[in-house]
Amino acid sequence: MSTKMSAACIFCKIIKGEIPCFKLFESDKTLAFLDINPLSKGHALVIPKHHGEKLTDIPDDQLGEILPVVKRLAAATGAKDWNLLQNNGKLAHQEVGHVHFHMIPKPNEKEGLGVGWPMQATDMDKLKALFEDIKGKM
Amino acid sequence: MSTKMSAACIFCKIIKGEIPCFKLFESDKTLAFLDINPLSKGHALVIPKHHGEKLTDIPDDQLGEILPVVKRLAAATGAKDWNLLQNNGKLAHQEVGHVHFHMIPKPNEKEGLGVGWPMQATDMDKLKALFEDIKGKM
Repeated sequence: MSTKMSAACIFCKIIKGEIPCFKLFESDKTLAFLDINPLSKGHALVIPKHHGEKLTDIPDDQLGEILPVVKRLAAATGAKDWNLLQNNGKLAHQEVGHVHFHMIPKPNEKEGLGVGWPMQATDMDKLKALFEDIKGKM
Repeated sequence: MSTKMSAACIFCKIIKGEIPCFKLFESDKTLAFLDINPLSKGHALVIPKHHGEKLTDIPDDQLGEILPVVKRLAAATGAKDWNLLQNNGKLAHQEVGHVHFHMIPKPNEKEGLGVGWPMQATDMDKLKALFEDIKGKM
């Protein structure tokens, strides 16, 4: 399968070399580079070369190197604490419409990803009904 | 290789069936289940069965199904917007010391993951120096 590209996509332009990047890893299917608007020192992106807006748009066989490369990046930055984040959709804070995984070191409270955790009350009956519904669609 | 387990780990106990869960997917290497303290309807976890605290502790060959299962979960919940989050270390909001990936639907501003984005000023000279340093360690 040839890699799907989008002419208008900024990340596809980076993949094609039309826009420069601080390239940390490259293979047939995967690219990793520094985020130039970092949340912390070492903030980097790992992307599948296959163009797709959301993770569900990327074929499984294009995703196999993503997590191994994230591991290598995290180790290379020396980050002790860090977050892996992949956003799908504008409401979920996605800003570029090409799937990307953020590896964001968390050196202290102020720098790195801010995690808001609006935990809901646990309702076991509702969870059970939801479980049956989702399970039936897996 | 046999799967590494930790007797004290709550997720290893779920894997062994000693603690129940709303199981959505299971294979030799991977388990997915509903989060019982959800941030939004459909919030689920995907974990490698191999015990390790941080992503860098998990061998690559134990990670191959993680993203495909996340995709299936996201599709099954019907979430349009959603976040994938994996936290490494207490400072980065990790609460259980066994690697887990959160698939968190983002149905509206209030529910789901809160994303704080303390973007830093871009300093190309510093980025270039950092790039050389990380690149040398990849």
